[in-house]
Amino acid sequence: MVQWVYSFGDGFAEGKAEMKNLLGGKGANLAEMCSLGLPVPPGFTITTEVCTHYYQNGKTYHPDLKKQVDAALAKMEKALGLKFGDAKNPLLVSVRSGARASMPGMMDTVLNLGLNDATAEGLAKNSGNPRFAYDSYRRFIQMYSDVVLELDHYHFEEILELKKNELGIKLDTQLTEADLKDLVVRYKEKVQEELGSPFPESPEEQMWGAIGAVFGSWMSARAITYRKLQDIPENWGTAVNVQSMVFGNMGEDCATGVAFTRDPSTGEKIFFGEYLVNAQGEDVVAGIRTPQSITLEGKKRSGSKLPAMEEVLPPVYQDLVKVYQKLEAHYKDMQDIEFTVQKNKLWMLQTRNGKRTAPAAIRIAVEMAKEGLITKEEAIKRVDPASLDQLLHPTLDPKATKKIIAKGLPASPGAASGKIVFTAEDAEKAAAENKKVILVRLETSPEDIHGMHAAQGILTARGGMTSHAAVVARGMGKPCVSGASELQIDFKNRKCKAGSTELKEGDLITINGSTGEVILGEVPTIQPNLSGDFAELMEWADAVRILKVRTNAETPLDASTARKFGAEGIGLCRTEHMFFDAERIIAVREMILAKDVTGRKAALAKILPMQRKDFEEIFTIMKGLPVTIRLLDPPLHEFLPHTQAEMEEVSKAAKVDIETIKQRAIALKEENPMLGHRGCRLGITYPEIYEMQARAIFEAVIAVGDNVLPEIMIPLVMHPKELEILKAKIDAVAEEVFKKAGKKHAYLIGTMIELPRAALLADKIAESAEFFSFGTNDLTQTTLGISRDDSTNFIQPYLEQGIIEKDPFVQLDEEGVGQLIEIAVERGRKTRKDIKLGICGEHGGNPASIHFCARIGMDYVSCSPFRVPIARLAAAQAALANKTAKKKAA
Amino acid sequence: MVQWVYSFGDGFAEGKAEMKNLLGGKGANLAEMCSLGLPVPPGFTITTEVCTHYYQNGKTYHPDLKKQVDAALAKMEKALGLKFGDAKNPLLVSVRSGARASMPGMMDTVLNLGLNDATAEGLAKNSGNPRFAYDSYRRFIQMYSDVVLELDHYHFEEILELKKNELGIKLDTQLTEADLKDLVVRYKEKVQEELGSPFPESPEEQMWGAIGAVFGSWMSARAITYRKLQDIPENWGTAVNVQSMVFGNMGEDCATGVAFTRDPSTGEKIFFGEYLVNAQGEDVVAGIRTPQSITLEGKKRSGSKLPAMEEVLPPVYQDLVKVYQKLEAHYKDMQDIEFTVQKNKLWMLQTRNGKRTAPAAIRIAVEMAKEGLITKEEAIKRVDPASLDQLLHPTLDPKATKKIIAKGLPASPGAASGKIVFTAEDAEKAAAENKKVILVRLETSPEDIHGMHAAQGILTARGGMTSHAAVVARGMGKPCVSGASELQIDFKNRKCKAGSTELKEGDLITINGSTGEVILGEVPTIQPNLSGDFAELMEWADAVRILKVRTNAETPLDASTARKFGAEGIGLCRTEHMFFDAERIIAVREMILAKDVTGRKAALAKILPMQRKDFEEIFTIMKGLPVTIRLLDPPLHEFLPHTQAEMEEVSKAAKVDIETIKQRAIALKEENPMLGHRGCRLGITYPEIYEMQARAIFEAVIAVGDNVLPEIMIPLVMHPKELEILKAKIDAVAEEVFKKAGKKHAYLIGTMIELPRAALLADKIAESAEFFSFGTNDLTQTTLGISRDDSTNFIQPYLEQGIIEKDPFVQLDEEGVGQLIEIAVERGRKTRKDIKLGICGEHGGNPASIHFCARIGMDYVSCSPFRVPIARLAAAQAALANKTAKKKAA
Repeated sequence: MVQWVYSFGDGFAEGKAEMKNLLGGKGANLAEMCSLGLPVPPGFTITTEVCTHYYQNGKTYHPDLKKQVDAALAKMEKALGLKFGDAKNPLLVSVRSGARASMPGMMDTVLNLGLNDATAEGLAKNSGNPRFAYDSYRRFIQMYSDVVLELDHYHFEEILELKKNELGIKLDTQLTEADLKDLVVRYKEKVQEELGSPFPESPEEQMWGAIGAVFGSWMSARAITYRKLQDIPENWGTAVNVQSMVFGNMGEDCATGVAFTRDPSTGEKIFFGEYLVNAQGEDVVAGIRTPQSITLEGKKRSGSKLPAMEEVLPPVYQDLVKVYQKLEAHYKDMQDIEFTVQKNKLWMLQTRNGKRTAPAAIRIAVEMAKEGLITKEEAIKRVDPASLDQLLHPTLDPKATKKIIAKGLPASPGAASGKIVFTAEDAEKAAAENKKVILVRLETSPEDIHGMHAAQGILTARGGMTSHAAVVARGMGKPCVSGASELQIDFKNRKCKAGSTELKEGDLITINGSTGEVILGEVPTIQPNLSGDFAELMEWADAVRILKVRTNAETPLDASTARKFGAEGIGLCRTEHMFFDAERIIAVREMILAKDVTGRKAALAKILPMQRKDFEEIFTIMKGLPVTIRLLDPPLHEFLPHTQAEMEEVSKAAKVDIETIKQRAIALKEENPMLGHRGCRLGITYPEIYEMQARAIFEAVIAVGDNVLPEIMIPLVMHPKELEILKAKIDAVAEEVFKKAGKKHAYLIGTMIELPRAALLADKIAESAEFFSFGTNDLTQTTLGISRDDSTNFIQPYLEQGIIEKDPFVQLDEEGVGQLIEIAVERGRKTRKDIKLGICGEHGGNPASIHFCARIGMDYVSCSPFRVPIARLAAAQAALANKTAKKKAA
Repeated sequence: MVQWVYSFGDGFAEGKAEMKNLLGGKGANLAEMCSLGLPVPPGFTITTEVCTHYYQNGKTYHPDLKKQVDAALAKMEKALGLKFGDAKNPLLVSVRSGARASMPGMMDTVLNLGLNDATAEGLAKNSGNPRFAYDSYRRFIQMYSDVVLELDHYHFEEILELKKNELGIKLDTQLTEADLKDLVVRYKEKVQEELGSPFPESPEEQMWGAIGAVFGSWMSARAITYRKLQDIPENWGTAVNVQSMVFGNMGEDCATGVAFTRDPSTGEKIFFGEYLVNAQGEDVVAGIRTPQSITLEGKKRSGSKLPAMEEVLPPVYQDLVKVYQKLEAHYKDMQDIEFTVQKNKLWMLQTRNGKRTAPAAIRIAVEMAKEGLITKEEAIKRVDPASLDQLLHPTLDPKATKKIIAKGLPASPGAASGKIVFTAEDAEKAAAENKKVILVRLETSPEDIHGMHAAQGILTARGGMTSHAAVVARGMGKPCVSGASELQIDFKNRKCKAGSTELKEGDLITINGSTGEVILGEVPTIQPNLSGDFAELMEWADAVRILKVRTNAETPLDASTARKFGAEGIGLCRTEHMFFDAERIIAVREMILAKDVTGRKAALAKILPMQRKDFEEIFTIMKGLPVTIRLLDPPLHEFLPHTQAEMEEVSKAAKVDIETIKQRAIALKEENPMLGHRGCRLGITYPEIYEMQARAIFEAVIAVGDNVLPEIMIPLVMHPKELEILKAKIDAVAEEVFKKAGKKHAYLIGTMIELPRAALLADKIAESAEFFSFGTNDLTQTTLGISRDDSTNFIQPYLEQGIIEKDPFVQLDEEGVGQLIEIAVERGRKTRKDIKLGICGEHGGNPASIHFCARIGMDYVSCSPFRVPIARLAAAQAALANKTAKKKAA
């Protein structure tokens, strides 16, 4: 019999932390905490397999499930001496989701489940606090109706508002037991009225309703969006946790809180958290009341005047400290914990590896390794390479004059400027138009995620460091300032006021997520500091990685930046980018418009010295590291003049009349330029172009001296003969230049593998090619038959419909394109054992794709300068993963 | 020791017919004729391996060659009692090329080699005809100078003209022995003057010079062009035949001629040839003198008044008849023979399988099979499938009024109309502009081949049925009228006169190559007759072939034509072609311009009945044969209105303002539409389009009844899920339609394999696909990264530079695209053993590509209606070839 249900509680658990896939993160960790002897309210977990079974069987459960749930419930009742649905000693439970990966705010929760008219009375008696009991009851009805019965909560808020008006009161706390009892009646009438059936009185019916709602929410639109953004496969499913209620809102000796064992923003080794007295858990994260610091240190740092838990509940605080230390030591990672204090007793509701910013991830990993808690290898694995992006981009220049108009919490580090928008929809629209915006909200909710993704940064008026906005922004690596309470938002009129400053939609502001500052206008930025923990971790990474990391660069600035970021050479220097320079474009156009070889050669002679100078500069910067230079690749018409003025300019320089220029432009026009007369096809049909480029390279080599490693790359090869012919021509130029200079110099000639045919014929191409560089952009375009420029209209729907899991231009399509690469690697090496293999498409900076490159044994990846550190770390992780895989295989 | 030289003559030969690859066609057949006991002037063949060795070793010979040539020469001398270079009994030789495949007119020949002042005198004495001897000598100097020393013949013609003017004579025949001797002196002076060195007196030097010239001519531009057109690999090389001279020009008891053992134009079993008395062989084919018929029957049929050889030289004629019958019986094929009569003795100079027209090839093959000379299988192999093209296209309507302005020889059958051009260059230029032209020449030469290729037909004023123009045109399958002597061409002024009719460049004429008529203007044509020998051969072919042959058709006309040509189904019915109909395009445009699904559905509802009617018609015509219908494939913008008028039309019909239409057109514009939002990507993003098409198909199925076999094809699939999703939608429509109709009907759903990724993932795609149809046009475009529309600028230079051997859009690139197809076939079958496999790209009608399809075990090929018979025959040949290959392997 399949075990669908796992019990925990009372120092014992059927599950454990390793069973995350089955029990979800929350369930596994609740079980683990029980086994560690920590105080956890008893309960049980319905496994993720139930979810999968549910969706595979037309939303039905396996017949065994009910029996197992009943048995688990009986265990809880026994442990607590309470009974589910019992009027005297009622057991109340929470029902929560718990997927394998944490999905904050995405799944629905029901608290206080088990309450009805009879059990509410029992709770009133047992707790000695009837007001609390009936407040819990009316909250339960609202929550259950919203989440399970899909009856929007505004119905109940209206009734509450009406009641308060009738009573002439303003605060919920002014409601009496009788008022609350009356609200319960009115709430239930509303349910009957809206749904045509009564609110379920049976606790069992309530429980199964809630379980079904959790499973249902797995396929809600917002859950689907989150999974897509976070790369969570749909078939993982969610578990359901049914747990006995503990109450942080029974009185002043009760509290609820969340905490991190280290600072999730900076990584500093400091206990860090927030709590609220007399509150339920949701109150802290919902951002409705501003939470207080748990520690005195935290209180001091935040400048808050509200008392810390350390002061208010000292003994419970001491218990909490022991618990968090035990948890961090046990899990060997920074923990994000949730707890409730019920009548001075600490109950642990959750522990999980805490989300953190990139700098925090690095600091925690490096410090834990130094503390001996984890190994250096483990530290390398702990940091998500993609998250480094946040560290590598500029931050605000501290010397710049800043007009600070508001201050909030530094919820997610980094700085961003943009125009104000007030809705997620507007943010998304602006992003589609390439406009930079800051999303300004009172607080955020899961419905805003797509807008947060589209914005440069997020600014909220309410909520703490653990609010939805803060947690999600940190996960996304977006700057966020939360709880900027001075901010008054007039949503309707699309404006807001920050102190005395009036702002409207479209006004430019800057936020600094590392300080919490909100600044008027755009602020200049400075380059990030890459020393300290970052440098140390990168050093460790470099020590284990096998893949070399190069950069795609053609300007001296890019080359220097990449060197600073640790690039070990240039993997792609696109010579055509050098042609667009204002000075040169005229000569380039002259070349294209020339009637014959003689005319082309005359124009090329003008370009030669400029190209030579480019190469001299780059060779000098790269100090003997390999530099792969790709000869001219794009179709010639890309260089043609467009405006009348441009045409006149060229007409003068080239001594060609305008009509001829226009006609030539028409003649060069192509239906599908991506598949047109470009790449080495230009080299074959206009050999003088590649000859000039080769000459510029070799003359630069001679000029710069010995410390140069040029690799000449021929693009768009589809046939071995193309390469053979062009290699012969380049060799001839080299011989001529070297003879004239009286000295020789080593160089390599190789090719891009960017057409399926080239991959398939790699064995023959390798006869001439000394290296292959996989041009995965074009290889993806041709293998999938997708023009990148035209793909938006269907790639988005394809992602939404789950036809493809990732944009193939972002993450390498291993299943398709990957097959061709593997074929080419195998066949290339068969012909030339020591052939150098690298990748220079955009995928060279994508961690998953880097893993692929490492797995198939490439020599290097090449990516844009800012992605170099990401690639270095990803390459190290790939090397570790391959080592583990090999060990397992052995 | 390698044998580089093979002797023959005197009833003995070292070689034989099977050694064609080594000895070339001519050499192998000379050897074979010797072995058959036929009268062949003794000689020897230098093998093709010498040619290959020559080009692989910097144009040098193997050291053994000279020894072997000397020995062979000694054998000739012994056989004839003559001596090379001897003043008394000089041996004279011809030096001729002889490649593996016949290349008429392409290779250079030197006759009378061995003559110098001393041997000429010897020849004069021995022949008793000094005039003949010195005429031969001066001809030899001119020919040798032209071919070997590269001194143009006009130098000598000038001298000759001058001499005749000095003498006041008009004809060469009026020159005396003394005049000719003087010419020899002047010719030699000219050589000394032009080249700075004397004409070689040494016969040995002459011979080696001529041998070198033959090898040199293998790489001449015209030879390279011919090889490209005729698919002859460069590395085959040519042999050199050195043979003792026999003379047809020694007097009135001498003659020379060429003949075919059957009529090469019709295939009729009749001995057919031309000869000239007192002439050298080249005179017949050069077209300078109009040759006479060999047989009386031939004389009668041509209406000639010149005496037949049968009358003039009856005993020699009888010898010739015995020889030709022996040769045909021996070679079991129609022979093209060359002979010379020297003083009433017949000498055979050549035999080879004769070139023939397509109707002749079929008739000869079928009749020979019926005669029991060859098997039916052999008959099938004898006909070049590509040549059938000539038979399948319309001929002149015999009832049409025709203004015949000239009459020539029916040199190559078929009819063609076009504008007059007078040079090969103009013909080529016109073809590039898609203009139809008739190339009009005095006579043609190898330099004209590219122009003949470009023209619709060829008309010459001079030359017989075996002239260059006639032979080459038949090989190309182009209509040709030769020797239309009424034609007076004023080349300089680009006009000509046919009798009283004045014609100028650009005037329309029609030629009928089957009758020799030249007609003013364009003449209506009629469909070809496909019965008789053709039908019989096709029946035999159908009996042996395994591949099915379908057609690409979407109109009732195309479908009927294809059925008549033997199509066994439709392999590709392109539904979008049905959308361009004038009535429909408005509704289609309305659909594209619709703002939302509702609007699109409304427009689609208008298209539905029209699509259903299309399918009903086609299903009816195809009478239960399978019909593969491809759902909408091209990008939507292809259907958008372009002109203002079209836009207004749509604007009215769709109730959308013009501005919106223009904006939508801009929005739909793509950078690379070939790789854009098309194919099943439309089906995924606008499911209502495919749903409408599926509905039209299924409703048509119901309407037509039981005798229907629909196969629904999804284009441009790159991911298994695309097909899975669309299949489900189509199945749902089928279920709905069938439910409503109250009856079910079988259908298949499959996919195009036209992207590399689809080929690579064929195993997964085959989970949903019931058939694969290889869309080799797009698969070639993506695998090679070549846009067919943009390829002309580099495909032509690639062919010229020998980078690729064939245009990959004409003949399947087996090395690249073929690999992907083989992968897909293997993986597709792995998942679904009985998956139906076919090809529907242009390659489906290309014989070489059909062989590939047969070899890898496809089920069918599909091609345009007119290519169906070609495909049937090619498929039969492929089946026979595979049978042979299997036998060999066993």
